[in-house]
Amino acid sequence: MHFASDNWAGAHPSIAESLVRHAGGFAQAYGTSELDRRVEQRFAEIFERECEVFFVGTGTAANALSLTAFNKAGGVAFCHREAHVIEDECGAPEFFLGGSRLHGVDGPDGKITPENLQRAIARFPAGFVHSGRPMGVTITQATEIGTVHSLDELDAISAVCREHDLPLHMDGARFANALVSLDVSPAEMTWKRGVDMVSFGGTKNGCWCAEAIIIFGDRFTGELPYIRKRGAQLFSKTRFIAAQFEAYLQNDLWLDLARHANTMTANLAQVFETAPGARLGWTPQANEIFAILSDTSAERLRSAGAVFAQWKLPRVTDAVLDDDEQLYRFVTSFATQEADIEQVQRLLSNA
Amino acid sequence: MHFASDNWAGAHPSIAESLVRHAGGFAQAYGTSELDRRVEQRFAEIFERECEVFFVGTGTAANALSLTAFNKAGGVAFCHREAHVIEDECGAPEFFLGGSRLHGVDGPDGKITPENLQRAIARFPAGFVHSGRPMGVTITQATEIGTVHSLDELDAISAVCREHDLPLHMDGARFANALVSLDVSPAEMTWKRGVDMVSFGGTKNGCWCAEAIIIFGDRFTGELPYIRKRGAQLFSKTRFIAAQFEAYLQNDLWLDLARHANTMTANLAQVFETAPGARLGWTPQANEIFAILSDTSAERLRSAGAVFAQWKLPRVTDAVLDDDEQLYRFVTSFATQEADIEQVQRLLSNA
Amino acid sequence: MHFASDNWAGAHPSIAESLVRHAGGFAQAYGTSELDRRVEQRFAEIFERECEVFFVGTGTAANALSLTAFNKAGGVAFCHREAHVIEDECGAPEFFLGGSRLHGVDGPDGKITPENLQRAIARFPAGFVHSGRPMGVTITQATEIGTVHSLDELDAISAVCREHDLPLHMDGARFANALVSLDVSPAEMTWKRGVDMVSFGGTKNGCWCAEAIIIFGDRFTGELPYIRKRGAQLFSKTRFIAAQFEAYLQNDLWLDLARHANTMTANLAQVFETAPGARLGWTPQANEIFAILSDTSAERLRSAGAVFAQWKLPRVTDAVLDDDEQLYRFVTSFATQEADIEQVQRLLSNA
Amino acid sequence: MHFASDNWAGAHPSIAESLVRHAGGFAQAYGTSELDRRVEQRFAEIFERECEVFFVGTGTAANALSLTAFNKAGGVAFCHREAHVIEDECGAPEFFLGGSRLHGVDGPDGKITPENLQRAIARFPAGFVHSGRPMGVTITQATEIGTVHSLDELDAISAVCREHDLPLHMDGARFANALVSLDVSPAEMTWKRGVDMVSFGGTKNGCWCAEAIIIFGDRFTGELPYIRKRGAQLFSKTRFIAAQFEAYLQNDLWLDLARHANTMTANLAQVFETAPGARLGWTPQANEIFAILSDTSAERLRSAGAVFAQWKLPRVTDAVLDDDEQLYRFVTSFATQEADIEQVQRLLSNA
Repeated sequence: MHFASDNWAGAHPSIAESLVRHAGGFAQAYGTSELDRRVEQRFAEIFERECEVFFVGTGTAANALSLTAFNKAGGVAFCHREAHVIEDECGAPEFFLGGSRLHGVDGPDGKITPENLQRAIARFPAGFVHSGRPMGVTITQATEIGTVHSLDELDAISAVCREHDLPLHMDGARFANALVSLDVSPAEMTWKRGVDMVSFGGTKNGCWCAEAIIIFGDRFTGELPYIRKRGAQLFSKTRFIAAQFEAYLQNDLWLDLARHANTMTANLAQVFETAPGARLGWTPQANEIFAILSDTSAERLRSAGAVFAQWKLPRVTDAVLDDDEQLYRFVTSFATQEADIEQVQRLLSNA
Repeated sequence: MHFASDNWAGAHPSIAESLVRHAGGFAQAYGTSELDRRVEQRFAEIFERECEVFFVGTGTAANALSLTAFNKAGGVAFCHREAHVIEDECGAPEFFLGGSRLHGVDGPDGKITPENLQRAIARFPAGFVHSGRPMGVTITQATEIGTVHSLDELDAISAVCREHDLPLHMDGARFANALVSLDVSPAEMTWKRGVDMVSFGGTKNGCWCAEAIIIFGDRFTGELPYIRKRGAQLFSKTRFIAAQFEAYLQNDLWLDLARHANTMTANLAQVFETAPGARLGWTPQANEIFAILSDTSAERLRSAGAVFAQWKLPRVTDAVLDDDEQLYRFVTSFATQEADIEQVQRLLSNA
Repeated sequence: MHFASDNWAGAHPSIAESLVRHAGGFAQAYGTSELDRRVEQRFAEIFERECEVFFVGTGTAANALSLTAFNKAGGVAFCHREAHVIEDECGAPEFFLGGSRLHGVDGPDGKITPENLQRAIARFPAGFVHSGRPMGVTITQATEIGTVHSLDELDAISAVCREHDLPLHMDGARFANALVSLDVSPAEMTWKRGVDMVSFGGTKNGCWCAEAIIIFGDRFTGELPYIRKRGAQLFSKTRFIAAQFEAYLQNDLWLDLARHANTMTANLAQVFETAPGARLGWTPQANEIFAILSDTSAERLRSAGAVFAQWKLPRVTDAVLDDDEQLYRFVTSFATQEADIEQVQRLLSNA
Repeated sequence: MHFASDNWAGAHPSIAESLVRHAGGFAQAYGTSELDRRVEQRFAEIFERECEVFFVGTGTAANALSLTAFNKAGGVAFCHREAHVIEDECGAPEFFLGGSRLHGVDGPDGKITPENLQRAIARFPAGFVHSGRPMGVTITQATEIGTVHSLDELDAISAVCREHDLPLHMDGARFANALVSLDVSPAEMTWKRGVDMVSFGGTKNGCWCAEAIIIFGDRFTGELPYIRKRGAQLFSKTRFIAAQFEAYLQNDLWLDLARHANTMTANLAQVFETAPGARLGWTPQANEIFAILSDTSAERLRSAGAVFAQWKLPRVTDAVLDDDEQLYRFVTSFATQEADIEQVQRLLSNA
């Protein structure tokens, strides 16, 4: 019963085998091999348009380097107040930005509201150097609390960005989970909505270590190669990332894995909805559940070996905890098994 | 005939298989799994003492983050003028150092001389803020031009560092190649010589992507975890690095691979020493040869499909080029085959 | 009727004359002249203990460089959510900190509460690299909204800092105004309360451009000289700052000027308390008034030539605005004249 | 006999009086007062074209912030190997550049040669991320060793910059001294030569603290206001800088002061040329002399109270020192008196 995080799972067998398959022979280093090019081309197919693709090693790197592409002196990038970039990356974005700031914006369901974004931007009047100046917006899809922006919600945020000429970045550490949740195409969830760049995560969904920065349009052309190398994220044997992505993107493996993870979450959610001493904090839309458990229920699961994390309540939420309750996060992944969920059910039902 | 670089080779089969072997099951993320701990312990055995071990993704990261451990306002780190850190990392070290400076020091054979190091340090009088202040020294072992510091040379540099209380970092991107060249133990080549921290490279010697910062002593304790996370180099599924190192460090695989690479270089060097239209720029000591080829010889090799790079002459060298000659770099690796070297010999001999 | 800011006033005649008096002759540059030393000694007298003194050019520099003295990788410095360092310095602190973060803490009256500070610190569990780590606290005295921390309040904040071994910095852009408000000695308001470093501002209180970083204890010894030079804040002819401070600190001029400014504020506050269409947002304690004016009253003042700024309501406040009201800031200074206040009174009374 | 540096002199009486004259009354802060605007307009007259003007506090700030205007990830700015920016600013430029690099280029007389500049640029092949990429050039006028670039030399350097589309910055800490040396107009020495931005120094030539960044053209429009504020160089009472410049630029005071300083240098140079135990290292062209003195002569001057600094020989120079000789720097300023030079002559003649 491993629900600590989707990064506790190892790699999918197809990914691991791809690494064996590509281990032999010589190939150009630093992202210029045929395999690298082929995988970049595959991304273009998937996104149905030309795009720049930059492999990096961690999601933190993908986010931090993406934001650097539109960095400005005194710049401020807006994100949800509880986004991963601002809460869980040890200040890496601000470090790579040389001190430019992330500005947290509130909103329910882990999402910035367009109104709050407008209000936040308005705090930085044009030309008023003392406050700094807006330089971009970053959203997380799926969000840190397991919800997913609808296409309309993306449009609404994007409209604010256009109005203020702010690039829009999407942290897609769980991109595939959001995609299968919405049941739309990658294009529909990104550039057709006005998203300018994506941190495309593979690691949480079955890769060992495969993240890509995807850039649409030519606004930042030429900068990322230097930003990435200077950021120590240009791997010499990049084909080890390319090999992972090749298997990942083949025959819809990535979508299948995400679909499995989401299904496991849906099933587990149903358990929490019906079992005594458990309820959902809010409706999960991807592969994370935030459940409110009684201390008794939580203890029962823990005793039986279940691994999951206590979580702090979001600032903006309808969820309310009783005295003997806590909020917990359960994450499912490509490796989660139905049997584990059934065991959770048994444990909670026998209360 | 692939001599472009040791990072054009893929991964050794044992490394790739280790990734398959460890792909299944769940494990704690972010460097805290049992496998991570076991490999860290293995490093302690290899170095014959306790040490802190930090996995990172690239050699550039290992170097940049190591230097950051002893960063100071107005700080200056000394390196050879043609070291990788100053010539080939797009300014990553200075970027991670927030602008602190690398100061190039000259010396023959790709090595700082103790005299030149003393002279360089003397340019920064104590308390004179205008010049900045010395904060550390970094050397490369094996060097960028394929030579190896002897134990005596390491002692001499280290003595200067001690005199001025400067930490000594060793860029060991080709650590194993240097080690088998000197035929000493890891301890003898590092902390017994006064080296405080090592960028321990596995990538160039058969791994996909496995680098470790090794720190001896407690001078920098507590800083690297934050430096690494902030630097976007804390991988979630770190066991993918650990799994590589496990295979790499088992049964002396790493030493065998390096020994093979060095032998290939020795053999190829012999070819260049005896063939017409070719000679050595200087004596290779690890797995890189810098050969001076006549234009005819170079063309002959290129036409036959050999891959190797033209190189610029070091600032300090006895090597002199004739008008119809150029300097070229040939790198051998675990994957280099004897047959390729024989083919070079045939091609040059038939001149 | 100039109430826009205390930095709209020029320099007090005594300050200006001191610059004339010291203009002739030669003196060592870069902070080593006899005058520099004499003024540093004067600071030691004023603070009743040895301290390090570093002249800088702007309040932003004083704050940013002070914080840099205790900078750490992944570090977080706590400040009031509406402090000058986080709202009005264009990200300078984070820039000088190389991306380390300011974390806003709420509290009424422009002051962090000890409870909120504890709670904020608790968000960064020891050793949990993802969140970063606490590295210091900075408070503003007098605060951005014209209130003053009492000695007890300083003690309470300081106690939290000690508990977590966090250095405490005081932004004293309006140090003198706070001091005469509390009617205590500089020592009592700073190191006797556990303050480790002060941005000692002279500019807003009658100097042209005179700020000093004052450091108590030897915790940061040796760093500031490099931090200042690297930060482009080491002036060559530092005696121009020293000359200002010499006059400023002589015969209690600085206290007299602050007392005048505070008195002007008290008088103006009385006007707002009694006049129709005006009331105080909260009780002013130094030289700034935040008044709630009806649109009619504000317009009346503006038409008559009064200069003052609309302000946004603090996040935590009891003040409530009616539909036809706004919050405004009025700042008095050494140069404010009683006549101006009487004119405000006349204008509001004739409503 | 004060020849230590031109920043050992205080302020010219006219400058000091201007500060008294402008001390009273209220004025908009942060660079927006009428006086600020008037002085900015005065710069436009002096340079015979529109230009952006940014007051800052130190020459280091002027240089560091100027370079930041054209900063790039992995960027490299070229300067003379012994320029002030690289030798005497404690790494401030690299700090403000967030780690981008200064690359030293050799050349005689303290000047980059166009050939060496071309060669240096060629080390950074287009698109080769490992080396980083050229982003600008900075030269010093007058140079660190008291020479002056001729208009032809400026044209030649500028031509290389244009060829590679690199902005050209001029460190004019001693701008006026160079100008009167060449006897040309400010326009002729700057934008008519292809200079894009100037650090216009007033401090060394009679101001207390007055430096301005002058930008020609619209290439960097909009960036400097934020770069300056974020760099803690936006003074609140900027009119204190404006007031200095107003007096400085009035009635050619600045040119008169520089002419005096240069004349003093010419006279002192004549002394060294004719006196026993003294000779010139090279021909001074502005207000600095680098003289080779016998130990006896140096000691004689020192004993009589002369203040001057020993200097290290440039890397590229024809000057050769005998065993009993050293190189010394003598700087004259607006405050240097003929009598002091006569005394040097007497002291050396009586040998």
